[in-house]
Amino acid sequence: MFDRYSPFVRPYLSTRSLEPENQETPIQFIRNEIVNTRLFFRRNHFSYPTLTFSNFWIPVKGSVATPLMLLMQDLYNFKSKTIKVVLECSGNKRSLFEPKVFGEQWEKGAISQGIWRGVPLSTLLKLAGISENAKEVVVEGYDYGKRTDLKGVYSYTRSLPIEKALHPDTIIAYEYNHKPISFKHGYPFRLIVPQWYGMASVKWIKQITVIDNSFEGPFQSIDYVYYPNKDDNKGAYPVTKINVDSTIQKPLHMEVLDTGKHLIQGIAWTGGGYIKEIEISTDNGKTWTNVLVENEEKTPYEWTSWSYEWSVQNKGEYTIIVRVTDSHNRTQPKIPFWNRKGYGYNATDKIKVKVE
Amino acid sequence: MFDRYSPFVRPYLSTRSLEPENQETPIQFIRNEIVNTRLFFRRNHFSYPTLTFSNFWIPVKGSVATPLMLLMQDLYNFKSKTIKVVLECSGNKRSLFEPKVFGEQWEKGAISQGIWRGVPLSTLLKLAGISENAKEVVVEGYDYGKRTDLKGVYSYTRSLPIEKALHPDTIIAYEYNHKPISFKHGYPFRLIVPQWYGMASVKWIKQITVIDNSFEGPFQSIDYVYYPNKDDNKGAYPVTKINVDSTIQKPLHMEVLDTGKHLIQGIAWTGGGYIKEIEISTDNGKTWTNVLVENEEKTPYEWTSWSYEWSVQNKGEYTIIVRVTDSHNRTQPKIPFWNRKGYGYNATDKIKVKVE
Repeated sequence: MFDRYSPFVRPYLSTRSLEPENQETPIQFIRNEIVNTRLFFRRNHFSYPTLTFSNFWIPVKGSVATPLMLLMQDLYNFKSKTIKVVLECSGNKRSLFEPKVFGEQWEKGAISQGIWRGVPLSTLLKLAGISENAKEVVVEGYDYGKRTDLKGVYSYTRSLPIEKALHPDTIIAYEYNHKPISFKHGYPFRLIVPQWYGMASVKWIKQITVIDNSFEGPFQSIDYVYYPNKDDNKGAYPVTKINVDSTIQKPLHMEVLDTGKHLIQGIAWTGGGYIKEIEISTDNGKTWTNVLVENEEKTPYEWTSWSYEWSVQNKGEYTIIVRVTDSHNRTQPKIPFWNRKGYGYNATDKIKVKVE
Repeated sequence: MFDRYSPFVRPYLSTRSLEPENQETPIQFIRNEIVNTRLFFRRNHFSYPTLTFSNFWIPVKGSVATPLMLLMQDLYNFKSKTIKVVLECSGNKRSLFEPKVFGEQWEKGAISQGIWRGVPLSTLLKLAGISENAKEVVVEGYDYGKRTDLKGVYSYTRSLPIEKALHPDTIIAYEYNHKPISFKHGYPFRLIVPQWYGMASVKWIKQITVIDNSFEGPFQSIDYVYYPNKDDNKGAYPVTKINVDSTIQKPLHMEVLDTGKHLIQGIAWTGGGYIKEIEISTDNGKTWTNVLVENEEKTPYEWTSWSYEWSVQNKGEYTIIVRVTDSHNRTQPKIPFWNRKGYGYNATDKIKVKVE
């Protein structure tokens, strides 16, 4: 993990809140394709749930021919799938919106990537036999608590459209980086929904219910909805796929450099297709250079690491911008799409440096 | 340390850079008067020095009657002094300046407080017998390296005016919170200069030299100087004493709260005198309320913790501002004093919350 550094100096999660725990990956200092569990961002709506393992099983029920009651060992015995996936919280970079929006003030580190192993959700759904009218699959987590905007207690529950639930890469994961998932990241079982923002990847799965209608829980109908307007809900639509985006990891914003050669490094990712083009500007967008995109070794759901050797001889201030485009021709916008709850920020990434 | 939280959920240092290591105290989550070494901010100009202890001594030399060569045990044998001190980096809150300034983008956590024990520098200076013409005391650290703005290699070296060096509370510390200082914070000996910004508290002391003139090293003549103008050095003057300042710890900026009672909590501190008045506004500065200042139990160099019970019945957005004044009648300004290198930020602290 820390090849570049002595083990003596290492980065930490950046604390956003403790009740519930929300901590950010120090993304600028991740030089590896695989984020260590210790540095994987933690995002919670509630305090951690209490799980009892003496009698643990996961029901698969609702609009199915044969409801299932699955023991942990049952899930481990199904044929597994292993996928490298970038998980990004839809609130990643929320603190960059102008005007500012309320909620966790994530900087650029509500994103991580690693190797998940689990059983495809489709395996269970096919075994149970979903009914013809099935429309969505509801996944409930063990975490629950109060909300500021509603009375009562709610569990963290989300649904997926049936097609996404049946996608062979939508898995019920039990390993991260070849070890059991850490408790804070959803042990023993969490959903992993590639290409969707992290809110879909429900942790601590309690039960799975197939329904014939549309699920309306608050984490689906109130939160994780794009509201384009400050004062009304006109034009609202749900948060689903990850937007095309990039982050400059090095140099750091407002860093002072000397003249000479400097490596500009970063990552780029998308929730659809692959990263096709990476452009960099070191003159605040006046001129752009294409950065070599290396995708040969890449699996479909991981980020693309990129680097660019910048040779700078003239002292002064420089604004560096990166803009990436995916194979669906989605490009990072210059101005982010402002929305009241602050989801999906993906404007071109921009830093300033001084060369002296 | 973490009374409020399960040991299971804890804050971490926030990483600003790794080469050299600069990490920030999660100040919003510190509920204790004493910051644990683990969470004490780390501020370095260079990579960590290599120290050899087989033949370790500290020279006290220069304009003195009798130069000294002090072994570690000699320093431990002098009469010690124990003081609770707030240490604040002069770049604390630099990221809040507008327009932005270059350098480490510290948020509000380049500050910590704890109990330092050591021998007064004056004990050594008196033993060595400083000459009549002595003007400054130069303290060199073992840390050294390159700078972006000069050729060659420089050690981290700073001087103190003779009066400040002779102040009985300027100590050569060897314990923090009743244990040997951690290596990253200056083991085996570091200077502690109460009431001055942290740059004066040289870590890993290598030697002490009394001089008859003014020391001109780059960490004194280039860095740690207030430059009021962007493009010239007119009106420049050195960074010394800590400005009067405060930080709101709770609630968090952009937090969403429900109606009812909420504790607003924070700290206030000054480099001269004591905190005399703490005013809070929950209506963006229209009206102000005095917060009870409890100083009875306080020693002279520690921060003042404060809290205010806010009862809020009306839903909406609120801007909370805190403004403190010290016994020398220094008050936090509304607009910070902008300076090119971004030192001494101390504008009134301000957060926004939404009540729903």
